[in-house]
Amino acid sequence: MTSSGQADRLLLVADLAGTFVFAAEGALVAVTAGLDLFGVMVLAFATAVGGGIVRDLLIGAAPPQALRDWRYAVTAFGAAAVVFFFSRNATQIPISLILTLDAAGLALFAVAGTEKALTYRMPPFIAMLLGTITAVGGGTIRDILLARIPVVLRADVYATAAFLGAAVLVGALRLGLSQAVAGISGGVVCFLLRLVSVWQHWNLPQAK
Amino acid sequence: MTSSGQADRLLLVADLAGTFVFAAEGALVAVTAGLDLFGVMVLAFATAVGGGIVRDLLIGAAPPQALRDWRYAVTAFGAAAVVFFFSRNATQIPISLILTLDAAGLALFAVAGTEKALTYRMPPFIAMLLGTITAVGGGTIRDILLARIPVVLRADVYATAAFLGAAVLVGALRLGLSQAVAGISGGVVCFLLRLVSVWQHWNLPQAK
Amino acid sequence: MTSSGQADRLLLVADLAGTFVFAAEGALVAVTAGLDLFGVMVLAFATAVGGGIVRDLLIGAAPPQALRDWRYAVTAFGAAAVVFFFSRNATQIPISLILTLDAAGLALFAVAGTEKALTYRMPPFIAMLLGTITAVGGGTIRDILLARIPVVLRADVYATAAFLGAAVLVGALRLGLSQAVAGISGGVVCFLLRLVSVWQHWNLPQAK
Repeated sequence: MTSSGQADRLLLVADLAGTFVFAAEGALVAVTAGLDLFGVMVLAFATAVGGGIVRDLLIGAAPPQALRDWRYAVTAFGAAAVVFFFSRNATQIPISLILTLDAAGLALFAVAGTEKALTYRMPPFIAMLLGTITAVGGGTIRDILLARIPVVLRADVYATAAFLGAAVLVGALRLGLSQAVAGISGGVVCFLLRLVSVWQHWNLPQAK
Repeated sequence: MTSSGQADRLLLVADLAGTFVFAAEGALVAVTAGLDLFGVMVLAFATAVGGGIVRDLLIGAAPPQALRDWRYAVTAFGAAAVVFFFSRNATQIPISLILTLDAAGLALFAVAGTEKALTYRMPPFIAMLLGTITAVGGGTIRDILLARIPVVLRADVYATAAFLGAAVLVGALRLGLSQAVAGISGGVVCFLLRLVSVWQHWNLPQAK
Repeated sequence: MTSSGQADRLLLVADLAGTFVFAAEGALVAVTAGLDLFGVMVLAFATAVGGGIVRDLLIGAAPPQALRDWRYAVTAFGAAAVVFFFSRNATQIPISLILTLDAAGLALFAVAGTEKALTYRMPPFIAMLLGTITAVGGGTIRDILLARIPVVLRADVYATAAFLGAAVLVGALRLGLSQAVAGISGGVVCFLLRLVSVWQHWNLPQAK
């Protein structure tokens, strides 16, 4: 296997791992909301791949990656099934672990989404927006399906962390750094900013 | 007219009939929710063609069929007008007739959606998901517009019937059966499963 | 600069002005709903460009114009920032000025959306629907994100004004009038109908 083939495989594994984490979180929310098995599957799938699907439609890359490759759907439904059948045990998972895995998924999706948008020749600022949509779009769709105001609009440094990570990535590419270094820099900034903001209870300002 | 031309015409008539049924149901929900004439039109249109439009966007078939051919919009708005102006009489339609027509529309849209996704070379499992989206997507959009948790996520064997009908269709094609036989088999399974589940009060399990 | 180049520049300026007005309105609603700075940005952006993005996806013009050209995003976020930081002063803007600017934005988006749909060879009746979606889609997405029944479905002659303006445009083109005359006629009809309906408290009928 070439080193490029290994890098691609690593990226796919990371992408599927992020899909699993986000799907499990979506399923947990669905179980708490009292949905049935089908509803749990839909919310897991929408949370995990909704952001990427919206990004792909917006950049003109239909059919979206998450529908071309059946492994995304199977990963999301597998995570949903695990949560559904072990939902009593799920409450015993430490919240710090969930937050850390979620921050990792956020960073991964923000970086991957920004890079894909740049590949499709979107303007840099728009690519940063599309990276943010990739990271937070799935959770937004999940909340819309639950007839709730998306939590990402109301509180926390969440989408902001994704956007700043995307900005670091774009800035690093502008400075001439390699795609790998730029991607890792953006991802680390997003991940750390998210965790520190939870730890320090940071919030964005509200108008008065 | 060739026999292929007759089959195409039969499919179009069936599709428009399903559009009429779903549009009338959407209009009835809109009237009950107290929307004005425009709102009734929008909910009828969204319920009837929303699932097919989402499917077409996801498989990369833009502009969607329901917008290329003006007969879908006219059928949906016609159904909405009938319901709007005769809404007092609508309450006298027996519920068993509504349920049967709805189950027929569900089966038709699930089969047509799965076949179209296969034509666009989507993986079989994804095609089954897209058939389900075709069948239940319109009702989901209707409920989102009414700021309700989509009823399909909460209860009943509805989306499940569509998904299993799609699965029978895909399985029959795998076994080498003709497209007509596979489509009819899938449609009959979806239709009967839906009606039996209503009659027997079947529900999907919920997590505890 | 040629006269065609001047016309294009005039259209772009008008489009960005409409984007600014709609974004400011979306931001004002978001501030009132108690969203944070990020939420205000998202609602401003969605209100301003959501309708045009949906139209572009539906006619097969991905990536949408509002994402290809970064000036739309910058205009929307600029309007959001102005509203966010001067939200106390915003309450002093006379409501008649807001209604007039909004009616102008409605007319502009309805006409521009219908013309673009016709350029992409959509059937005339569908182009009228797409013009209406361009004009009211952003506000609908804003209300969905706020978990509210879209106000456009419930009351007022708002979408109806957009639709009738689009119809006048299509009819004028059928009569052989030039695109400029047809567009201005449709826009003026939409603008006046909207303002007169507010002034006269017109509403669409509801079913009983």
